[in-house]
Amino acid sequence: MSEAFDAVDVIVAKRDGHRLTDGQIDWVIDAYTRGVVADEQMSALNMAILLNGMDRAEIARWTAAMIASGERMSFAHLGRPTADKHSTGGVGDKITLPLAPLVAVFGVAVPQLSGRGLGHTGGTLDKLESIPGWRAALSNEEMMRQLADVGAVICQAGSGLAPADRKLYALRDVTGTVEAIPLIASSIMSKKIAEGTGALVLDVKVGTGAFMKTEERARELARTMVELGADAGVTTVALLTDMSTPLGLTAGNALEVRESVEVLAGGGPADVVELTLALAREMLDAAGRPDADPAAALADGRAMDAWRRMIQAQGGDADAPLPWATETEQVLAERDGVVSTLDAYAVGIAAWRLGAGRARKEDPVQAGAGVQLHVRPGDTVRAGQPILTLHTDTPDRFARARDALVGGIEVVDPTTPVTPRPLILDRVTP
Amino acid sequence: MSEAFDAVDVIVAKRDGHRLTDGQIDWVIDAYTRGVVADEQMSALNMAILLNGMDRAEIARWTAAMIASGERMSFAHLGRPTADKHSTGGVGDKITLPLAPLVAVFGVAVPQLSGRGLGHTGGTLDKLESIPGWRAALSNEEMMRQLADVGAVICQAGSGLAPADRKLYALRDVTGTVEAIPLIASSIMSKKIAEGTGALVLDVKVGTGAFMKTEERARELARTMVELGADAGVTTVALLTDMSTPLGLTAGNALEVRESVEVLAGGGPADVVELTLALAREMLDAAGRPDADPAAALADGRAMDAWRRMIQAQGGDADAPLPWATETEQVLAERDGVVSTLDAYAVGIAAWRLGAGRARKEDPVQAGAGVQLHVRPGDTVRAGQPILTLHTDTPDRFARARDALVGGIEVVDPTTPVTPRPLILDRVTP
Repeated sequence: MSEAFDAVDVIVAKRDGHRLTDGQIDWVIDAYTRGVVADEQMSALNMAILLNGMDRAEIARWTAAMIASGERMSFAHLGRPTADKHSTGGVGDKITLPLAPLVAVFGVAVPQLSGRGLGHTGGTLDKLESIPGWRAALSNEEMMRQLADVGAVICQAGSGLAPADRKLYALRDVTGTVEAIPLIASSIMSKKIAEGTGALVLDVKVGTGAFMKTEERARELARTMVELGADAGVTTVALLTDMSTPLGLTAGNALEVRESVEVLAGGGPADVVELTLALAREMLDAAGRPDADPAAALADGRAMDAWRRMIQAQGGDADAPLPWATETEQVLAERDGVVSTLDAYAVGIAAWRLGAGRARKEDPVQAGAGVQLHVRPGDTVRAGQPILTLHTDTPDRFARARDALVGGIEVVDPTTPVTPRPLILDRVTP
Repeated sequence: MSEAFDAVDVIVAKRDGHRLTDGQIDWVIDAYTRGVVADEQMSALNMAILLNGMDRAEIARWTAAMIASGERMSFAHLGRPTADKHSTGGVGDKITLPLAPLVAVFGVAVPQLSGRGLGHTGGTLDKLESIPGWRAALSNEEMMRQLADVGAVICQAGSGLAPADRKLYALRDVTGTVEAIPLIASSIMSKKIAEGTGALVLDVKVGTGAFMKTEERARELARTMVELGADAGVTTVALLTDMSTPLGLTAGNALEVRESVEVLAGGGPADVVELTLALAREMLDAAGRPDADPAAALADGRAMDAWRRMIQAQGGDADAPLPWATETEQVLAERDGVVSTLDAYAVGIAAWRLGAGRARKEDPVQAGAGVQLHVRPGDTVRAGQPILTLHTDTPDRFARARDALVGGIEVVDPTTPVTPRPLILDRVTP
């Protein structure tokens, strides 16, 4: 078959700083999906995009081409608004768990199609799989029925959505091209737009434990995604939120489910509650429910009821005890003082090394493994007081987890002023 | 086996504009040769090098690592100086053919190890293969014996020299990363340094028919290669020469051999003679023979004698008639005037399409195909006078060859001053 374009010409155009044409973009994504453009050609193009950038129209076309590589879903037949949330990933980020049932309380359908976690930031499906019986893989029909019956579903994204992105992401992962903002934005947004949600709220994390280390880069990513959403007719808003310290007091699978259930029961750490409510209000606003009162739904048990229905619909036993790891060790304060740093990246790597996350996508995770935090930045501690508890089923992992924490915990003189960063840093709209 | 480095870390370092360490460079070249670093990783690294550059020490290390991937040769046992010439490639560039025997006349050994031509600039081996009986593939022993007996050899480079470069070049060719000056320079110089020549003269072409389109880029490539030679202990000098119009009056295989024999017989086009003598003087100077008189050796038949011995040593019949293509067509002047443009690129593509060059390395070439020029820029022509003769065995190729010439031939009003560019633009030394 004769090809409309030549891969080298497309690479050279971007290498030399030119805009890619619509035809070049459509062709290169389609030809890569078909295997006509080789991995080594696409990786060279990705590096050229990373270093030379793409403008708004190029990114929109790139995203549209990835959407066109697969199927598109629609929730129109549900007869109610849909709202979805996506987080760029952070340590202890379990917000999806309380958020999805909370928003569903108000008649908004919440389809949370997730991937597997890779690296230190964990994965929502891995967390829910610590609930006995719960299963992540649903057919399209099961998912649609659950959305109609329960209003919320958190399940594995089907392989039919944006298959070009799956292939491209695996390539970027091994070629040093993950960090390109146009490619990150189009990867996330192609799946969300193909999924067919009406409204989308993005939680773009900033800080050591996040993918974006600086507020400037996070803001650029947020702006790019919000523009992509707007260009595709999806009401999209982004919050920039702090990820310099873990969210809540747990990082791990069952540990985070337990904390999420506390929030659904009207308790839980203040920061988890604050972010859950802020994101819920954004989703409800975007879905046309500005008068909904999500705080009341947490307080009066309606969110918990929706959670139980959501878990049960996927085979989970919402009353079963959650697993604990078999072994624990504590990390103690070395001096009296005030906690100035509890670094998100250090805690994330420690939880990952304890068995909460995976290095390769075929690796299993430990349901009980992870890190519990007993203090937060700004808290006063005495020497010998526990700061963290480490959990694992494989105690030979403790040493490497402790290595990860070196330099990640700082206790300073009580007279040193410690001002914790605000959780919500900014709001980005089209 | 555990690896000393991680490919992604090396890619990310260059992507982010850092110097690669000696350890990173040694590892990545070795691991790529072993297949541990994948093609898609090396192509991303190549693109990052193209866009972010490498400094002099990095390029020297990269070149050394490529040399270390294979064997090194030595001509020390010959007991006489060696000098080699490398051209970056141009249309009608047959200079190696008269040059090698000419320099050998003065007791300097000239080992010209060549690759196959790809694209419109042709290949020295393809040209010589139009001589009945001549063979390009010699064993190391045959090559050394010929250097001792005849003093000059033009043969196929063994696959043992810098195998990393062969793999890397094939990758760059399909990933839009051929044009990176550090990679071009290290590719050329790794083979020349591994070959073990004592002196090296580089002919860096500039213009439409050359790889380097601007004098600035050609000068940067020349400087980079001259520095690499100096750093490796090889006496190296470069000439920057014009490639806006073809060299001589022929582009093609047998056509160019015929013209080379004219030069060896004391005739031939002035520009071919000028460049042959200039390069011969550089090689003789660099090899410690500053008093040699190459013009005399062309005039008195000594160079022709060396040529005949060189061709016969490789099985060629120096007296056999050279092949002609079966079909010819002429390109005529459309008006009276002065030839202002005879574009090297246009003529090169036409010759290539007529069958003189190959698109893929497994393609055959036609010995007789190519383009003969009847005029040069600056010459006066009358309407209907032949400007070019096209030669091919496959007349269906004429139409596409003529397409390539559109815009490549310009005849202007006789009152318009036409100043041909000088042939030798500059000389670059360490």
